[in-house]
Amino acid sequence: MIVVIGGGPAGRLGAMHLARAGAEVRLVEQRSIGGQCLHERCMTICALNDVARLIECARIQKDLGILDSVPTVSYPAIRRRVSEVQEKLSSVLDAETRRTGVEVIYGAEGSLEGNRVFIDGEETRADAVLAATGSRPAVPDIPGTDLPGVYTYRTLPAMDDLPRRMVIIGGGVVAAEFAHIFHAFGVEVDMVARHGLLCVLDEKMRSAALRDLAGIGIHEDTSAMSIEGGGRVRSVLLTDGSEIAADAVLLATGLVPHSGMLQGLDKRPNGAIVVDRRMRTSVPGVYAAGDLIGPPYLTPAARKEGMVAAENILGRDTIMNYEGIPQSMSLRYDYAFTTSGDGGVTLSAPAPAGPGSFWDVARGWAGFAQVRVDPEDGRLIGAAAAVPGASILLPYIGYLMQKGITIDDFDDIVEIHPSTDGIYGLARYASGMLRKKDG
Amino acid sequence: MIVVIGGGPAGRLGAMHLARAGAEVRLVEQRSIGGQCLHERCMTICALNDVARLIECARIQKDLGILDSVPTVSYPAIRRRVSEVQEKLSSVLDAETRRTGVEVIYGAEGSLEGNRVFIDGEETRADAVLAATGSRPAVPDIPGTDLPGVYTYRTLPAMDDLPRRMVIIGGGVVAAEFAHIFHAFGVEVDMVARHGLLCVLDEKMRSAALRDLAGIGIHEDTSAMSIEGGGRVRSVLLTDGSEIAADAVLLATGLVPHSGMLQGLDKRPNGAIVVDRRMRTSVPGVYAAGDLIGPPYLTPAARKEGMVAAENILGRDTIMNYEGIPQSMSLRYDYAFTTSGDGGVTLSAPAPAGPGSFWDVARGWAGFAQVRVDPEDGRLIGAAAAVPGASILLPYIGYLMQKGITIDDFDDIVEIHPSTDGIYGLARYASGMLRKKDG
Repeated sequence: MIVVIGGGPAGRLGAMHLARAGAEVRLVEQRSIGGQCLHERCMTICALNDVARLIECARIQKDLGILDSVPTVSYPAIRRRVSEVQEKLSSVLDAETRRTGVEVIYGAEGSLEGNRVFIDGEETRADAVLAATGSRPAVPDIPGTDLPGVYTYRTLPAMDDLPRRMVIIGGGVVAAEFAHIFHAFGVEVDMVARHGLLCVLDEKMRSAALRDLAGIGIHEDTSAMSIEGGGRVRSVLLTDGSEIAADAVLLATGLVPHSGMLQGLDKRPNGAIVVDRRMRTSVPGVYAAGDLIGPPYLTPAARKEGMVAAENILGRDTIMNYEGIPQSMSLRYDYAFTTSGDGGVTLSAPAPAGPGSFWDVARGWAGFAQVRVDPEDGRLIGAAAAVPGASILLPYIGYLMQKGITIDDFDDIVEIHPSTDGIYGLARYASGMLRKKDG
Repeated sequence: MIVVIGGGPAGRLGAMHLARAGAEVRLVEQRSIGGQCLHERCMTICALNDVARLIECARIQKDLGILDSVPTVSYPAIRRRVSEVQEKLSSVLDAETRRTGVEVIYGAEGSLEGNRVFIDGEETRADAVLAATGSRPAVPDIPGTDLPGVYTYRTLPAMDDLPRRMVIIGGGVVAAEFAHIFHAFGVEVDMVARHGLLCVLDEKMRSAALRDLAGIGIHEDTSAMSIEGGGRVRSVLLTDGSEIAADAVLLATGLVPHSGMLQGLDKRPNGAIVVDRRMRTSVPGVYAAGDLIGPPYLTPAARKEGMVAAENILGRDTIMNYEGIPQSMSLRYDYAFTTSGDGGVTLSAPAPAGPGSFWDVARGWAGFAQVRVDPEDGRLIGAAAAVPGASILLPYIGYLMQKGITIDDFDDIVEIHPSTDGIYGLARYASGMLRKKDG
């Protein structure tokens, strides 16, 4: 018997992989399957952003006289409908998981004391354990975070309607994604970014993102000192002395591995379970995967880690490889980037207008693409794009980079037209320039 | 001096390639640069479809109670704005073309008598000629095609407002694209498809497309006998005896190469200039490319043909390769497919919900993906998808297929989540199944 604790992407994929290989697998999940990815993070942002993008496109087309009006959003309806679709998807995942032979136990808490496994406090026999209990939102240590009207992405589903003014504390990808969404819904949004807004991004990608965040109040190099209010949140005080009025505050200040119920395993100071690249913890027979082991906190990485853990549990020596994992962010466009090495020459250019961005040409901006090329051998070593569909494109660009694709190889790729694939055009342009230089 | 006749994708790309290589190039274009691709076909359909998709998404979200209303389209505004953006893009293309050193002559007709070149009837010296005069819409030989209210994609920009009822004669990709657009705009649309609707598509792709075309009257295995009307179109009579009322008729019955001004070259019965795979015509020194030489009538193929012609004019022996050219169609989703061989095992599955399709889950349909795999070696030999972003994805899938990618290789691709890439999931599933069978 193998016990898997947690039914998010890491635990679920690992459990299914084990069951498909013939193992007896028991998956313990406190609520419904799919993890935060389905219930609060990836899919929620996708759902809200699909509405936000529609509203933004409608505004652009209304300004051009093409549409007579811009629809108004009913947030209570979105909230209810998101949860309905999530339940539907969760039941699809449940059926898929059980079909592989995994026994799923809902509503119970799995816990560990070294290699002893407990389900709701009752010890159970296990030949191996895969711990995948995920993460929880970090809450900054400032007064007022417990006031009504203060949310994390985890409690946001409880927000019953749109506030008039929202302060988002955080300057990372998720903070920007929520800021963009609520701004599109008509909320007055301010962001407080202690370390600078989206500073993980390349400068040009960051500039592109700032266009999508136009109209949002951005407070950089200052931080929230306290959240003020009586019966409910009223404002946020910043260390620079300013005060921002707010009916709601969203804390988007990162994640903390959720490992309180896992005792006797080596942990990092933030609670992350220490694993090697085979996903083995410090306790023999106990493996861990997903957000529980720390960054990158991405569903595809968590899935892969879950599979690697499963392979090793099955006795097939497998190493987790973090290379070529593309990063992304969803604002008006998809922002996605991937890299396979340092240095090289960077080229960037506006992306072509295509499906999803044709009408943006009227405002003079249909996105952006960037490539980084090794001038010695023409290998593509970095790529980034802020265009509709970038998230579907960059995983393949990342793979081709792993395989050593050169900019000349793009000659053999035939595009579909029209397309927003700025990387293709840029790679071909770079190839032409390089040939000319050589010729 | 090299003379290029026609500034569409084939002529323009060929001209720029020649100029970049140092050749003296004169490009003759009767109207503005960009060809039908920019002015009447690809970009027009993209522009209209971006509005159509917004309306459809708004309807779905309105039905779910998320939006309070569905905007109404002003067709005269769309028409004016499309043309403004097209002019903007045309001036971008003009500047890009001239920057490479190409001399562009507008408003003149280039013609040939064997290897003698004329610009507006005046003979001009040329060391080589690239003819790229494109195509024009085929007009069926039935009474009434000259009635007011009867359009081809070429004259459609003259339609000043939406009709109440439109009949589209034709059952191919372009016919379906326009039918989808006008139906979304609120027009009552009927399609007359003599050889069956979208019969070029695989049966499952066709079924998916029929979902996107729900609400459109589809008349298969019958054809238009005449278009009736007095001062303007009133109805279309079909060979099965039925009559469909119409305020407008769109003829979408294919293309005819536009070669009347090119004399002394071998042609096919439909006027297509005969070329070899180096784009050489029957007359030494005269090359042809693009729609002028017949199918596939696709911009990326035309561009590639133009480049191949240019390379051969420059004395660099180059062969046109039609392998791996992906096909596509834009309805509610992108439909795209590519193939690199026959046979194999076909697997298909619903695509995952993701950006652009999250809310479609409520109606139980978020698209579709299909792979065809050689069971002997696991090579991917065919792929198709009807999802948002399929058009940005399939060119890379096609390239990877050329390079011999196997379904096991997809293990090394790391997705961005959420994504609508159904092909990825299907390939990985197929890989797991195949391993299980072998194991």
